[in-house]
Amino acid sequence: MIDLVVQGGKLVLPDACHSADLAVDRGRIVAVGTSATMPKARRIVDARGHYVLPGGIDPHVHVRWPFLAATTADDYASASMAAAIGGTTTLIDFAHPKMGSTLLERVTNRRAEADGNVAIDYSLHCVMTEGVPESLEQMGVLVEAGVTSFKLYMAYRRRGIMVDDAALFSVMRHASKLGALVCVHAENGTIADAHEAQFVAQGRVKAADFPRHKPNYVEAEAIQRAIFWARQTGARLYIFHLSTADGLSLVREAQEQGVRVIAETCPQYLLLDESVYDRPVDGHCFICSPPIRSASDKEALWEGIAQGVITVIGTDHCAFTLEQKNIGQNDFTQVPNGLPGLETRISLLHTEGVVKGRISVNQLAAITSLNPARTFGLFPRKGILAPDSDADIVVFDPAREWALSPKELHMNVDWSPYAGWKLQGAPVTTISRGEVIVDGGEFVGTSGRGRFMQRAHDTSRVASFEGSF
Amino acid sequence: MIDLVVQGGKLVLPDACHSADLAVDRGRIVAVGTSATMPKARRIVDARGHYVLPGGIDPHVHVRWPFLAATTADDYASASMAAAIGGTTTLIDFAHPKMGSTLLERVTNRRAEADGNVAIDYSLHCVMTEGVPESLEQMGVLVEAGVTSFKLYMAYRRRGIMVDDAALFSVMRHASKLGALVCVHAENGTIADAHEAQFVAQGRVKAADFPRHKPNYVEAEAIQRAIFWARQTGARLYIFHLSTADGLSLVREAQEQGVRVIAETCPQYLLLDESVYDRPVDGHCFICSPPIRSASDKEALWEGIAQGVITVIGTDHCAFTLEQKNIGQNDFTQVPNGLPGLETRISLLHTEGVVKGRISVNQLAAITSLNPARTFGLFPRKGILAPDSDADIVVFDPAREWALSPKELHMNVDWSPYAGWKLQGAPVTTISRGEVIVDGGEFVGTSGRGRFMQRAHDTSRVASFEGSF
Amino acid sequence: MIDLVVQGGKLVLPDACHSADLAVDRGRIVAVGTSATMPKARRIVDARGHYVLPGGIDPHVHVRWPFLAATTADDYASASMAAAIGGTTTLIDFAHPKMGSTLLERVTNRRAEADGNVAIDYSLHCVMTEGVPESLEQMGVLVEAGVTSFKLYMAYRRRGIMVDDAALFSVMRHASKLGALVCVHAENGTIADAHEAQFVAQGRVKAADFPRHKPNYVEAEAIQRAIFWARQTGARLYIFHLSTADGLSLVREAQEQGVRVIAETCPQYLLLDESVYDRPVDGHCFICSPPIRSASDKEALWEGIAQGVITVIGTDHCAFTLEQKNIGQNDFTQVPNGLPGLETRISLLHTEGVVKGRISVNQLAAITSLNPARTFGLFPRKGILAPDSDADIVVFDPAREWALSPKELHMNVDWSPYAGWKLQGAPVTTISRGEVIVDGGEFVGTSGRGRFMQRAHDTSRVASFEGSF
Amino acid sequence: MIDLVVQGGKLVLPDACHSADLAVDRGRIVAVGTSATMPKARRIVDARGHYVLPGGIDPHVHVRWPFLAATTADDYASASMAAAIGGTTTLIDFAHPKMGSTLLERVTNRRAEADGNVAIDYSLHCVMTEGVPESLEQMGVLVEAGVTSFKLYMAYRRRGIMVDDAALFSVMRHASKLGALVCVHAENGTIADAHEAQFVAQGRVKAADFPRHKPNYVEAEAIQRAIFWARQTGARLYIFHLSTADGLSLVREAQEQGVRVIAETCPQYLLLDESVYDRPVDGHCFICSPPIRSASDKEALWEGIAQGVITVIGTDHCAFTLEQKNIGQNDFTQVPNGLPGLETRISLLHTEGVVKGRISVNQLAAITSLNPARTFGLFPRKGILAPDSDADIVVFDPAREWALSPKELHMNVDWSPYAGWKLQGAPVTTISRGEVIVDGGEFVGTSGRGRFMQRAHDTSRVASFEGSF
Repeated sequence: MIDLVVQGGKLVLPDACHSADLAVDRGRIVAVGTSATMPKARRIVDARGHYVLPGGIDPHVHVRWPFLAATTADDYASASMAAAIGGTTTLIDFAHPKMGSTLLERVTNRRAEADGNVAIDYSLHCVMTEGVPESLEQMGVLVEAGVTSFKLYMAYRRRGIMVDDAALFSVMRHASKLGALVCVHAENGTIADAHEAQFVAQGRVKAADFPRHKPNYVEAEAIQRAIFWARQTGARLYIFHLSTADGLSLVREAQEQGVRVIAETCPQYLLLDESVYDRPVDGHCFICSPPIRSASDKEALWEGIAQGVITVIGTDHCAFTLEQKNIGQNDFTQVPNGLPGLETRISLLHTEGVVKGRISVNQLAAITSLNPARTFGLFPRKGILAPDSDADIVVFDPAREWALSPKELHMNVDWSPYAGWKLQGAPVTTISRGEVIVDGGEFVGTSGRGRFMQRAHDTSRVASFEGSF
Repeated sequence: MIDLVVQGGKLVLPDACHSADLAVDRGRIVAVGTSATMPKARRIVDARGHYVLPGGIDPHVHVRWPFLAATTADDYASASMAAAIGGTTTLIDFAHPKMGSTLLERVTNRRAEADGNVAIDYSLHCVMTEGVPESLEQMGVLVEAGVTSFKLYMAYRRRGIMVDDAALFSVMRHASKLGALVCVHAENGTIADAHEAQFVAQGRVKAADFPRHKPNYVEAEAIQRAIFWARQTGARLYIFHLSTADGLSLVREAQEQGVRVIAETCPQYLLLDESVYDRPVDGHCFICSPPIRSASDKEALWEGIAQGVITVIGTDHCAFTLEQKNIGQNDFTQVPNGLPGLETRISLLHTEGVVKGRISVNQLAAITSLNPARTFGLFPRKGILAPDSDADIVVFDPAREWALSPKELHMNVDWSPYAGWKLQGAPVTTISRGEVIVDGGEFVGTSGRGRFMQRAHDTSRVASFEGSF
Repeated sequence: MIDLVVQGGKLVLPDACHSADLAVDRGRIVAVGTSATMPKARRIVDARGHYVLPGGIDPHVHVRWPFLAATTADDYASASMAAAIGGTTTLIDFAHPKMGSTLLERVTNRRAEADGNVAIDYSLHCVMTEGVPESLEQMGVLVEAGVTSFKLYMAYRRRGIMVDDAALFSVMRHASKLGALVCVHAENGTIADAHEAQFVAQGRVKAADFPRHKPNYVEAEAIQRAIFWARQTGARLYIFHLSTADGLSLVREAQEQGVRVIAETCPQYLLLDESVYDRPVDGHCFICSPPIRSASDKEALWEGIAQGVITVIGTDHCAFTLEQKNIGQNDFTQVPNGLPGLETRISLLHTEGVVKGRISVNQLAAITSLNPARTFGLFPRKGILAPDSDADIVVFDPAREWALSPKELHMNVDWSPYAGWKLQGAPVTTISRGEVIVDGGEFVGTSGRGRFMQRAHDTSRVASFEGSF
Repeated sequence: MIDLVVQGGKLVLPDACHSADLAVDRGRIVAVGTSATMPKARRIVDARGHYVLPGGIDPHVHVRWPFLAATTADDYASASMAAAIGGTTTLIDFAHPKMGSTLLERVTNRRAEADGNVAIDYSLHCVMTEGVPESLEQMGVLVEAGVTSFKLYMAYRRRGIMVDDAALFSVMRHASKLGALVCVHAENGTIADAHEAQFVAQGRVKAADFPRHKPNYVEAEAIQRAIFWARQTGARLYIFHLSTADGLSLVREAQEQGVRVIAETCPQYLLLDESVYDRPVDGHCFICSPPIRSASDKEALWEGIAQGVITVIGTDHCAFTLEQKNIGQNDFTQVPNGLPGLETRISLLHTEGVVKGRISVNQLAAITSLNPARTFGLFPRKGILAPDSDADIVVFDPAREWALSPKELHMNVDWSPYAGWKLQGAPVTTISRGEVIVDGGEFVGTSGRGRFMQRAHDTSRVASFEGSF
């Protein structure tokens, strides 16, 4: 008698979809097979007519993240519950930079916030703001402890987190030795600040001015430079929230030349375009960095996914309430940057990607689970429906039609960039390490059951394998 | 009670290796899981310490193929037995061109030779020598009948099988509409013939002269031209036996531009170099077309596999006996072209590829099984270890060391290009549609049990999915 | 007392325009200087307000060229007179292939036609149709005799002049050793013939069908292949009448890679587009090979000139009368291919190129005189206004406005592709080796005064110098 | 009776060499012609057996330039005399940045130093260190006054002259509007400083350590970034002292894409390699920025000249005495950076370039005179031997063999990087605006005769013409 069988679904595996059942026991998948071969189970999850996806992994989440005077509204309990309902069973957040604290302390402090509160498994990227020897040394300790990715901001000088090329270089050089991953927010902060100052001086601070003060080149130059240093140092590089066709071209070219650069984009860059900033009432709510771009950038990003240049979709979940957003209703420089998105990722991508024929459902699983797992050292424990992997499973109804209503969402905010959108497809059941935590769309799990995941480093072998298709 | 369980092996799946058992019933795989979950079975195949590979697919085999005065020595019985022993459970041969016969007749005749004799599953490419309307019409009939790939020779004018650009173009244009695959022998026959005539006139006809009369450009120009027409017509193009770095560059560039071109190379181009033609006694035995190339071409091809530009390894199995080869001992123009290789493919690639760290074992499975299955419309029936797929399974001992001796091989020839080589890794058990046909390295199957496989066309969806990694 | 001074004009030199006078004596330029420095002269040519151009060189002229049943209408007397009036002082025609004659005989015969009749200096390309040893040997003799360029047709199989790759290769390889230039008509004749046969079978033989039966790829493939062999053999390659954007891209890429390929286009490809074939009455008159292309190809060619990828403008002057053209009024396969253009080249290019700002007047001089001189071994005797060069000089009025009327032209035909066009700029005075042969637009020279020009080979040094800007 | 005739030489013109005489009157060239056509002249300069070059233009000269505690040893009198002896008749120096002074004041002050002292014509680049509105406004005033190029340092933060991307961007954007040229010292100062600090901390401060602390990527990244901003802003960009193959590739690629980027290199990067830093006694003397590079970089730069990617050779003349250099004999951080070179440029390039067959003598004239003239708005007044141009003429003996001895040079320093080198070719006579100022290798001019040259802006038309060859 095993714990659970997922019955009658269409398993979404990397190579294809296969009609088969999944057997789950003691938190792990124990068999993939025909119904006739399934052991008896205490519980049957009916997946007939549904896809069975590997649990989503969102590698780009900000919980209680400070920006200007505001702090994002979600705590680990609410964020992880929303994630689970949306089909995500692992999230990766950030250990924040804090003056006077060491990298290790930052990770420890952040884990203290999460452990006991988080409902799904999680991990942390460690934010770095300089490349001094003490920090480099701690990188090694963290890698041993399973924190194998480090984030650097190429913008936000005034917030004190922007790195210069020297820091970027020394962190990359050291990461290359450690087999760690260097992740960047790629915007040229010097130019962005200068443009902002000029716009402020000219009184051009409405929401509609926001995207104009950070043209595509603000991102593209930073990507070009980050790639340059990755090539020189041999570091593996992860580009957060790629938003432009120009940046995409640079990534494609670098990959073709053998530079190990991985690109992420987010649903907001795939689904919206810059016209949102012209919306009279809530244009300012869409302020995030990089800005939402043109319709042609959007199409280029879909193409980048189809071609395998962009391999990961994170959300950059950064949930500010309307009240927080409204501080800057008439002044974009006062708006806390960021959009909520953790809960809606998979349904949005299914609707706009799979239903519209831009990607296959296998690609959906790859960009939301398999590829993040591989990229961040969670594979094969996460990211795949295979014997001995964690039983992180999502039963997904591809036919369900629904209208997105902020009120019915579970993120701790009162609005959504996609309010009123008609969607097709929704998670029905979410299973985390063998436990059903979402049933019929309702959260039935418990806060604090989630665990911190130690992640592997030096995944270069896997990387070169990925390249072999 | 099911038919069979493969127990304790390491399953080589596209994404990774997973330790799990395989349950087999009525010719199909029915479950992949932990031992505890396996149903009772009439037979247990012990795979402990071994890899479990999807059965090999060799898409490039010549059985009883005429060349000059000779005909290859293998018949379907001997060839398919040798294939099975070498870990190959599906082969694709050719329906020969014959004057006065239609394409359909050629396929029918060829099936009559194979059916009742072949020990493993098989299919046929249909060779075309012109692009007249009658032939184009029959292409459609064949595609409906599951013969979905067509081969054209860009060389061999004197043998009457060389096509000109007009035929190439019209076949490609029609194949594009049908969703069929166009496969080419890419050598510029006009140049090759002219060079041969010049060499003959100069008395330069020794084995050592052979590669010099067909320099790399003889291949590269033909590849460039075939790609040109594929781009124009939208046809999917398969390059048989890619042998040069120059050709590889052209394929890479075309793939980057979105042309659907698939490249195959063969073990002889990965393991040997042109110095074989200088061997005093048997240099002439190595004569095949295209010729074995330089050591640097060889390295480029391995790189091409690692990067995913070359995705298939066929053998171009074309087995002539020493007696047949010796006709041209002192005159390369009299040597029947071709090398035996059907039986040794997987062990050679394991030894030189996996053991030496050039490719992963997952890539080995991809290039010998998964990718051929996808390319030629056999997936997911073949090419993958998954529920409901054919139980074509090879238990492979990666540690076994052995010396290759022609006498101990089962192909119907008395020599091997690799005689005396030290190999590591060998198939132990081969299962075809659930039936153990090789046990402990011995063939225990029966001739005639193999079946003709109808193959799918229009695999474009799969193709774009492949590109998504 | 010298022969002549050209006074007060704006000299069009490679680097810039300089206001200066030209002194001419005994057929040569003897000084370039201010008026104060000019020696006394028997004759003053007033060039005030005018450009002073180096005499035009047209490297692509067909005099009495047979095509189907017709032969072009111009003889050397009429053609060279028209050339002079149009500002061209040197033409290069072709020694025709004729069955049973040797290359040397062909050149000798052709010279016999020209000498005594031609009014300006001339030279010949030698047409080759095969690459047999006897012909290769004669190439060497011809190069020594100053015939340093050889033309090969990659099309026109039925006219017996199409070469296969073997001939192309052997001629290129030999030309590379001789320092000779290989010139090609780049259309894939195999495809063109097959397409024509198909169109004929379908009854699609109107003028409007003509360009459709030779799509851009008919040219592009041939260019790609010619470049391939030029790269392999090291030959310098000249592409006649480039007409497509696709072909241009291939040339650009090859040049960037260091292949010595020189591209010519013609006024008809720069000024007309394929809509001419839809003209109800005279659409068939515009039939030439390659066909006139789309408007976007046209723009690409101008861009190619501006970027220095296309460096020569020839005319492909091939003058058939309306009567000759009308033979195929309803059947494009019966129309002799070719357009008249020798007389109108420079004025047309001035109007559409210089006046419209697409090229500078220095570029006009470069593409019509300096570059042809360098490319074909006539420099520095021709192509430049410098002391000791031949006094081939054109005084050109850039302001003159006129309407092109076939009746007022001097080519031996009764129509023009540009009838009724409004032009700006016209030659006023043409001087050939110091002799005024056109005065106020009237021909005042004599037939037979033109001389055969021996041309230099191995201009590789010059070629690499060109590349240095 | 005119002032002067240069008789019997071989004029080095852009297109070729022509044997002709030059007539000079009232400071200008008045005729180019055969001897027979020359007017009577008060003075004959015998150029038989010699080249006649357009007077050299050195666009990269530092007179009395402060670096650390030192100031370069040459004043305008000594520098311009040495230049003249070396065949250079125009130099472009820099208006230094000085705290508290405006751009206009800097130019005025610098002119006050030069006027009355300089023996040849000169101009100034204006150094900028920020992009504030006041400075941008003054750029416009300077452009009107003929100072049309502006230099920015991407390195040297501690010297207070390094610009950040915001300054670079705003200057480029404004220059684009003004038709001004933006010139950069392209080294990533942030990385260079960090590397220097690390080397100092590790005690690696010998001369041999110098090049290692500024690897090629220090230059390449800065070039990549400068090109990025040039592409975005449309500015014309001039790269001073390109030293690496990596940088060259970036420039080539940008030019191919239509970015208007012009590259200069200097003799030291073409003639020396990094082994100079290993010289036991005087290795530190070779310290300059960027450092001398590897032998393969050196070869790449020659290739870049031959291909026309690098079009200008300046000297970066920055003459420190041995005493000044020796301050840092054991500590590279204390060595004033820079090498003397103004006097030796043309003879060195003739010896290593023309005599060794790497470039033609026409290219020599192009890179030392014609191209600098065009690039910096001095053409056609300077840079060409043509009627009405300034009579800046150098009679150059290509056969003269001599050994370079610092004692016999005229720059105000007591050493040379090339001491003891065997050279071939030397200027014999230098004529500046019609006045012989060097005769038989001896300076016979006067200090203060040189004039400030107003330079043209918006040379885009010329630029696109250059591209047409």
